[in-house]
Amino acid sequence: MSIEQFDVVDLIHTKRDGGELETNEINWLVDAYTRGYVVPEQMAALSMAIFLNGMGRREIKDLTLAMIASGETMNFSGLGKVTVDKHSTGGVGDKITLPLMPLVAAFGVAVPQLSGRGLGHTGGTLDKLESIPGWRAELTNSQMFAQLRDIGGVICAAGAGLAPADKKLYALRDITGTVEAIPLIASSIMSKKIAEGTDSLVLDVKFGSGAFMKDIDRSRELAQTMVRLGTDAGVNTSALLTDMNVPLGLAIGNANEVRESVEVLSGGGPVDVVELTVALAREMLTLAGQPDADVEAALNDGRAMDVWRRSIIAQGGDPDAELPVSRETHTVRAETTGFVTDIKALPFGIGAWRLGAGRARPDDVVQHAAGIDLHVRPGDYVSVGQALFTLSADEPARFERALESVEGALSIGLEAPAVRPLIAEKIIAE
Amino acid sequence: MSIEQFDVVDLIHTKRDGGELETNEINWLVDAYTRGYVVPEQMAALSMAIFLNGMGRREIKDLTLAMIASGETMNFSGLGKVTVDKHSTGGVGDKITLPLMPLVAAFGVAVPQLSGRGLGHTGGTLDKLESIPGWRAELTNSQMFAQLRDIGGVICAAGAGLAPADKKLYALRDITGTVEAIPLIASSIMSKKIAEGTDSLVLDVKFGSGAFMKDIDRSRELAQTMVRLGTDAGVNTSALLTDMNVPLGLAIGNANEVRESVEVLSGGGPVDVVELTVALAREMLTLAGQPDADVEAALNDGRAMDVWRRSIIAQGGDPDAELPVSRETHTVRAETTGFVTDIKALPFGIGAWRLGAGRARPDDVVQHAAGIDLHVRPGDYVSVGQALFTLSADEPARFERALESVEGALSIGLEAPAVRPLIAEKIIAE
Repeated sequence: MSIEQFDVVDLIHTKRDGGELETNEINWLVDAYTRGYVVPEQMAALSMAIFLNGMGRREIKDLTLAMIASGETMNFSGLGKVTVDKHSTGGVGDKITLPLMPLVAAFGVAVPQLSGRGLGHTGGTLDKLESIPGWRAELTNSQMFAQLRDIGGVICAAGAGLAPADKKLYALRDITGTVEAIPLIASSIMSKKIAEGTDSLVLDVKFGSGAFMKDIDRSRELAQTMVRLGTDAGVNTSALLTDMNVPLGLAIGNANEVRESVEVLSGGGPVDVVELTVALAREMLTLAGQPDADVEAALNDGRAMDVWRRSIIAQGGDPDAELPVSRETHTVRAETTGFVTDIKALPFGIGAWRLGAGRARPDDVVQHAAGIDLHVRPGDYVSVGQALFTLSADEPARFERALESVEGALSIGLEAPAVRPLIAEKIIAE
Repeated sequence: MSIEQFDVVDLIHTKRDGGELETNEINWLVDAYTRGYVVPEQMAALSMAIFLNGMGRREIKDLTLAMIASGETMNFSGLGKVTVDKHSTGGVGDKITLPLMPLVAAFGVAVPQLSGRGLGHTGGTLDKLESIPGWRAELTNSQMFAQLRDIGGVICAAGAGLAPADKKLYALRDITGTVEAIPLIASSIMSKKIAEGTDSLVLDVKFGSGAFMKDIDRSRELAQTMVRLGTDAGVNTSALLTDMNVPLGLAIGNANEVRESVEVLSGGGPVDVVELTVALAREMLTLAGQPDADVEAALNDGRAMDVWRRSIIAQGGDPDAELPVSRETHTVRAETTGFVTDIKALPFGIGAWRLGAGRARPDDVVQHAAGIDLHVRPGDYVSVGQALFTLSADEPARFERALESVEGALSIGLEAPAVRPLIAEKIIAE
């Protein structure tokens, strides 16, 4: 790529004053920022201008492609299988990748799930799996390729070589108050997914109190932006907008989320986890050319479980090993009788994080047995003294701050709450 | 000042989302930025949010006071004289400080003119004066005080101790495309002027092609913001909005601008330079309690010249020394006969800069004899072959690029142009 020289201050002025950046300007910017010629304070000012003045469809595509061009790309075409991937914007208790990967791979499509670790109140898929003794997240590209060929699915750490410009920009946005800009979120997520070289992609875009986007309209806008971006880049992309006001399932943590995932793979598990796993699997298989796949059957007859076990073993883990259990637990019980009217996702996410299930800083160590197990769901009728949820931690000193977080987050009332659909909308390419 | 702790990302979010920052938040921010705890990329994002979402009157005042509190302040109350200062937002050929300081000081008020050096197409007052052999810009605070007491006026370099937060923020804004934000310009200028401890201040806020603000409405908004800010801080402040579409006077450079200033102090000089000098002097003397001062008389009878000579001598200069003359000149002559219809300030400013009169980088050396002398003014009738302007430089290689800059910047037409008033409006405290 031959790259012209630009004056970065002119480009900041363009975006600041509501103009559009040209393709060659965006290419230059991303390259110059990656090389350090454009300094962080300039990119921070530009990010804020993008936050407040937005970006057009062509600009977002250019930004995404430029971030992809900053690093290596992967290519699974040699597999001889259709590849399909899922990405979730993250929520409390969101362990869907764990049962979903084996379920979809059971139908003969390749499912490369390059995942990350958690920061803050939403957990990371790799952190959850690392509670399985021996399981390792880091694979070489050839190990990943072999596992996709032989087993059909893999969940592993994304290599540092994919879209390094995005990593650098994300770290900057995090400290400069520019995280929530839709053009920047969309290009950040999609640059990594497109660089992975997947044929199809289903996005689980969450809204509600426990999600990154609180508001369904903003989450729809993000989903539409990402679906357009995937489509423009030749990836068959669709999205589900799903409710993240209430934690997903009953387990919030790491080892307990693996346990719940295994229940789903055994044909059981909480209905909401099953519903979302099945819906995303159907959507992925539809994009992969199997719209009529009998997804539930593969959960009930052990085909999905078989892929799960083989993939855990391939990555050094023992699928039969006992998962870690915390040294201490603390159970909260109902003080009144009535219907559970609400269980707020965000306070429970923060509570689990404070128990040790998550990180405050990237180099913190996750305590795999720490977390929260809910014993009830909204709509359940409970009596005084009935167990509502149990906190688990290795250090009892953590209970106090976790209890502060969840104070008032589970409500009991006299009337049963209205049922909210978990899957609100589906967004497809226009 | 006892200072709370804040999360800088929260404060960026507040401004990004259109909110107002509290007084203690602004105090913390400026202090934390000065100490390096708030990093440049965070301040850059915040500056862009301020650019796009603005700041209220109270916030601008708080920002200004916090920048003053970041450094030392001066106090001229021991002089036993009223102090009055002038600040210009800068323009091409703007040498007004040179005749104005002695003129106002001739009426017994103290005129401390702490000035800067030039960068880009507008010249710096200190650069102009440094073309006088022996003259030095750097004075200690006690030398400055003595000169104000004994002579009445001083033009010298502003000490590095005044508003260091402003210096750091200005350098950041310069590279991040956030210079033109009115709250940031106003607080930057006024923090230094208020820290100087002047009783009164007259602002010369320029508009037009050669000014920082091209548009009179934006320049009015800046003037109003600064007048309010001065008033809120107890400084008697007013402003003139003046036209900077055409260079001020005939000389653009350094030594030639000193020559033109001496002509004004001798009772001559170009009418526009005299008009603006007299108007600003009247305004300053009015704020200083002498609304009826006969300003023209002090120019014509040598009283202003006397202060000029004494102040130059006090700072090591020889007022009778010959000023530097360039090694080379190049005169441009009229190719048609007609009225001079326009002389565009910006191209002539850039032309003089390219001849060596200004700096591209802060550590460039200024060539004092370089510059442009106009021989005509808009409205003059010229014949083919008549000299229009003369370029001066030490290196003839500089003529080519300077001539490119001024190409088409002086127009000749068949009809005399409409006369534009030099002083468009006066802005006083509400």
